[in-house]
Amino acid sequence: MPDRPPLRFAAFVMDTVSHIQHGLWRRPEAQQHRFDELDLWVDLARTLERGGFDAMFFADVVGLYGPAGGDFEVNAREGLQLPNGDPSVLISALAAATEHLGFAFTSSVLQAHPFEFARRVSTLDHLTRGRVGWNVVTSALDGAARNFGADRLEEHDERYVWAQEYVDVVTKLWEGSWDDDAWRADKAAGVVSDARGIHRIDHVGARYSVAGPHLSRPSPQRTPVLFQAGSSPAGRAFAARNAEAQFILSSTPEKTAELIASTRDQVEAAGRRRDDIRFFLGLAFVVGSTEEEARAKSAEIDEWLSPDAFLVHSNLGFDPDTGEQLDPDTPLSQVRTQTNRSHLQWLQEAAGDREPTIRDLARLSARIRSRVVGTPEQIADQLATWQDAGVDGINVINWTIPGSFVELVDHVMPVLQERGLAERPGASSATTLRGRIFGHDQLPDRHPARQWRGAFS
Amino acid sequence: MPDRPPLRFAAFVMDTVSHIQHGLWRRPEAQQHRFDELDLWVDLARTLERGGFDAMFFADVVGLYGPAGGDFEVNAREGLQLPNGDPSVLISALAAATEHLGFAFTSSVLQAHPFEFARRVSTLDHLTRGRVGWNVVTSALDGAARNFGADRLEEHDERYVWAQEYVDVVTKLWEGSWDDDAWRADKAAGVVSDARGIHRIDHVGARYSVAGPHLSRPSPQRTPVLFQAGSSPAGRAFAARNAEAQFILSSTPEKTAELIASTRDQVEAAGRRRDDIRFFLGLAFVVGSTEEEARAKSAEIDEWLSPDAFLVHSNLGFDPDTGEQLDPDTPLSQVRTQTNRSHLQWLQEAAGDREPTIRDLARLSARIRSRVVGTPEQIADQLATWQDAGVDGINVINWTIPGSFVELVDHVMPVLQERGLAERPGASSATTLRGRIFGHDQLPDRHPARQWRGAFS
Repeated sequence: MPDRPPLRFAAFVMDTVSHIQHGLWRRPEAQQHRFDELDLWVDLARTLERGGFDAMFFADVVGLYGPAGGDFEVNAREGLQLPNGDPSVLISALAAATEHLGFAFTSSVLQAHPFEFARRVSTLDHLTRGRVGWNVVTSALDGAARNFGADRLEEHDERYVWAQEYVDVVTKLWEGSWDDDAWRADKAAGVVSDARGIHRIDHVGARYSVAGPHLSRPSPQRTPVLFQAGSSPAGRAFAARNAEAQFILSSTPEKTAELIASTRDQVEAAGRRRDDIRFFLGLAFVVGSTEEEARAKSAEIDEWLSPDAFLVHSNLGFDPDTGEQLDPDTPLSQVRTQTNRSHLQWLQEAAGDREPTIRDLARLSARIRSRVVGTPEQIADQLATWQDAGVDGINVINWTIPGSFVELVDHVMPVLQERGLAERPGASSATTLRGRIFGHDQLPDRHPARQWRGAFS
Repeated sequence: MPDRPPLRFAAFVMDTVSHIQHGLWRRPEAQQHRFDELDLWVDLARTLERGGFDAMFFADVVGLYGPAGGDFEVNAREGLQLPNGDPSVLISALAAATEHLGFAFTSSVLQAHPFEFARRVSTLDHLTRGRVGWNVVTSALDGAARNFGADRLEEHDERYVWAQEYVDVVTKLWEGSWDDDAWRADKAAGVVSDARGIHRIDHVGARYSVAGPHLSRPSPQRTPVLFQAGSSPAGRAFAARNAEAQFILSSTPEKTAELIASTRDQVEAAGRRRDDIRFFLGLAFVVGSTEEEARAKSAEIDEWLSPDAFLVHSNLGFDPDTGEQLDPDTPLSQVRTQTNRSHLQWLQEAAGDREPTIRDLARLSARIRSRVVGTPEQIADQLATWQDAGVDGINVINWTIPGSFVELVDHVMPVLQERGLAERPGASSATTLRGRIFGHDQLPDRHPARQWRGAFS
């Protein structure tokens, strides 16, 4: 693959105890219960930079999984994204400890007013010298809405209307409020900035009225790298217009290739170039020095996985009509789920004489979730297959922090670098996160948000 | 003064070019135009810790000075708190570079939803191991309101009603949502937290509906040290109920003593103890090895001060009725101002044959603002006088960053430490900011916000 750019690597983490691979926090070497300690993250950032990773990608939620108002015994016991912390305030410490690692974080339109959020992000983009990304989410949790004054979430498509106005406001501030030459810092002339190059945006929309001007001068990237993860039609239309990177979960390489091609079609239809959007695939790795060792490790991981947490996280554990919590031993035949035939067969075999239950389904979905098992060379082969399918980067799901990343950095990244599947640490001359991914520091002219440049003069 | 506790020292700074002493950013050695660079602040934090300072205190605004919708030529040229950055995202880097320095920052009820803000602060209190303070402000700028969807600010007293609900929501989350023993992190038992000790707050008020629970587990201080700066009757009543530290500006020691005594009376009337509130006086120091040298430096500083920026910052430059910008050469006799007799006399002398103008008044107010001039020993004498008047700490206003602080740390703090007016670096065994100021890590039982402990069980 010498003609291909290397895959980009992000560490998919969350400032919490149990992000995705529930139950693994209990392993003796796992340190994710120390999520509230700065050292855990500073050390991890240094490990990732040493290993040639491009970014840390922080997930976030601002409410509980499960029906709003419901019991949260499982969430608490399993540490299912509870307690958690605000990733935005972690980043400056991580930036101080690294030179080029990027930091993308999730923030919902629900949680922050766009004027305040735009300044927070610009401040971070300055402090990191252009290494910030933002994962735009609309928030899918009723429990989150109820922390912000609403009884429940807006209807799904309306959430994307909201998100589009939110993106419009923040990109007006980032792209349009300050001209490139407005900031002077000219001591001799006694001029900090030239007001002729600073503009109010006077946004008036359905949800927001924001006068401006933006209080930050333009940061290295102006707009942070825009990540997005929605897969509904409304979500994909939103991504086609706005997103520069999409986080996807694996099915098969064939289906992934189809998804990527059709999203790129939409991106093109929105007036952008096909490669103006990049696809990061979420994968969790189980590494062994032999295939046998890897398989044994994978089986051991299965033993640590917690089906209870998966039941709540995936909403499998609730009646879809009433929101009532279901007994995990409820037979699958009594609930409505979307389970494909091969899974049902596996479930029946696993259950033996019993009827398969929703807990069996949770256990299965936990076991098959995005897992790549093998030697470093076998992992490289699989990543090459994903790259052939059009994947641009990997969002590495961890079992343990920092263990999963240390293992990857020490044993897998060198093999990937040898094969050109990953970049060698320090090989890129890019200083910004967008520069590392795209080769340019700011949004390209054809991105819709670039319309705001000069629009308020 | 061996029977007195030492004064506490905070560095009063802002993530901007020109915070208070406008014009000084142009001095050759001034570095505040580098406010967007992490190194400037990390180096300053280390200097302060080395010198025995207790905290950095970050001011903030989320709008422009001057009438809403007005011209901002002066704001831009003078760097009058524009551009600026969000101090909350600076703190983790500063915490990583220091051991015990505290970090208080300003955040208005206007800018962040209390559910999100409470989590951001709890995250910071964890990451800093209990070194965070919050300066509660209602925001006095119409220009800020217009960035957050309102045409203008609420009426003054209504802003404190709002602020009280805001404080109620965040302290319900900080104090009441999690019991002390809810967090377990017990790997062997497989229990992260015990849901029986985690409570929804179900706040429903005039402005906010917040279900909860708080997403953070209790941080070392739970509630950050609560600073406040209002001096109106509504502001002082709010402080008497909520504030642990009040930021005051100097007039005379006698008037300051009166202010402190009457505020302590109000604190006592609110069911708290007289010393449950501490007073931090804003002062700017001009240090010389001789008095003559100090006076010469002070006169040189006068030459750098910018009356234009003071006119806008103090609102002197605007017609109080129409909000129109006034010609700085407008005679004082033609505008309504509150200027005392000795100032008018000074102004008349300074103006000579001319009528004194509003620019003359701005120049005067800039020159007399909170300035202490002298040798380290003379400064110590003055601080002893302020301490006699009841002042508990000094919020050091800077001329230049880092120069003003380096000078203080190298030449003045050792003298103050020798005389017991400041604590020697490392002398305190307290690990939290509240511990350094009060000797206890969390709000005392008699603080009104402690009513939320156990209130939601």
